[in-house]
Amino acid sequence: MEEAKKAAGYKAVDDHVRSGMVVGLGTGSTAYYAVERVGQKLKSGELKDLVCIPTSEKTKKQALDLGIPLCTLNEKSKLDVAIDGADAVDPKLCLIKGGGGALLREKMVEVVSDKFVVIVDSSKLCKGLGPSFPLPVEITPFCHLHTMNVVASLAEVEGCKPVLRTGDCSNNKPDGEEPAVTDNGNYIVDLHFSKEIADATKAAQAIKKIVGVVDHGIFEGMAYQCIVAFPDGSCRVAGKGGEEPWWG
Amino acid sequence: MEEAKKAAGYKAVDDHVRSGMVVGLGTGSTAYYAVERVGQKLKSGELKDLVCIPTSEKTKKQALDLGIPLCTLNEKSKLDVAIDGADAVDPKLCLIKGGGGALLREKMVEVVSDKFVVIVDSSKLCKGLGPSFPLPVEITPFCHLHTMNVVASLAEVEGCKPVLRTGDCSNNKPDGEEPAVTDNGNYIVDLHFSKEIADATKAAQAIKKIVGVVDHGIFEGMAYQCIVAFPDGSCRVAGKGGEEPWWG
Repeated sequence: MEEAKKAAGYKAVDDHVRSGMVVGLGTGSTAYYAVERVGQKLKSGELKDLVCIPTSEKTKKQALDLGIPLCTLNEKSKLDVAIDGADAVDPKLCLIKGGGGALLREKMVEVVSDKFVVIVDSSKLCKGLGPSFPLPVEITPFCHLHTMNVVASLAEVEGCKPVLRTGDCSNNKPDGEEPAVTDNGNYIVDLHFSKEIADATKAAQAIKKIVGVVDHGIFEGMAYQCIVAFPDGSCRVAGKGGEEPWWG
Repeated sequence: MEEAKKAAGYKAVDDHVRSGMVVGLGTGSTAYYAVERVGQKLKSGELKDLVCIPTSEKTKKQALDLGIPLCTLNEKSKLDVAIDGADAVDPKLCLIKGGGGALLREKMVEVVSDKFVVIVDSSKLCKGLGPSFPLPVEITPFCHLHTMNVVASLAEVEGCKPVLRTGDCSNNKPDGEEPAVTDNGNYIVDLHFSKEIADATKAAQAIKKIVGVVDHGIFEGMAYQCIVAFPDGSCRVAGKGGEEPWWG
């Protein structure tokens, strides 16, 4: 699968990144290869005058090591393209992100990008968001149990089981009883679903409206296209400039 | 005016607080008297079995000094009544709050109260929100200048001038160049208006939707009634159980 992820990451850069652009660099095992490719093409001179905005400290370090010029949203508030992975992708290219806890920074960058290109391996495709990956919701620490209960009681997320993320903020490494703290000093509640979320757009709107909610991991109406890597090393493109999503 | 504020604070408690209730206690110079009255009535035995939720550390201290039993939203997620002040009140009883920087905790408590009773002196009444008091917006620190610009560029707040709050979080005491930090670790942008906000409900919705915004100081559709204190020491009640708002 590693070769396939690499192919998807490289293809995203080859298809969408041109000299002079402002580019958002995502975080994760697939986005890693996109950052690598940007570094290669800058070094070879094939790309010039790029400036990139990383979505995490980890990506920032990788980019700096590769000599990629960086800035922040404070300097450039509009991006030409952002390339990032996702934890789940439905046939409307609605995403769940935030397994690594960086959903807020990722969303801030990707929502102001003209094109947001999603790169995933095929295991992330799902018919409907929910069962394949829990939905992260970033909430303020003050009375977080209350906010967690208010979120979980929304009709739009009926049947979900809310779990406060503990230990490390990346839910891959739970290592304690203490709440995990995001880069922004907040907590994360993961909403676990056994059935598909009926309407992800409505769920997204209802969750964000709650007092105490900072943001959530539903990225809807944002993806321009999705490059999908398969175990055989091949890639297929869904969305604008590609096929109709085939996994519905 | 102090006597009038006291009259309004006392009236709110006398009219709305009954034994056995869960009561939200606001913060500020008028709410101070409501807390005082609750303490008096508990001490005299006129009120029994109250449990109260303070909206700030300052109110918590005042309440503890008066022997008022306290809890948090984690224990009681539904309140019978909350009593608090406001920085501006329009004829629809739509409010601006947050001059003291505690808008998030106040909103968390007041949004889950069956009745939210607002107590203000008459200088807080306005025909339309905006010019009389700047609108505070609580945002995450990461790339806050970007978020500030995104908020200020919304059509719903056209013409506003955004100012990052510095120094102490209460905007009464600006004492530095560093951004003021809320109890939740966030920053506050004050939107200054020279004209009235065209539609405060739409502005509220648009602002809260922005990635990076935690919440804002528009409290709309929340107030049950507003007790207004006048310089002559008299009070008038607007809203449910009172007059039609007369300052439109």
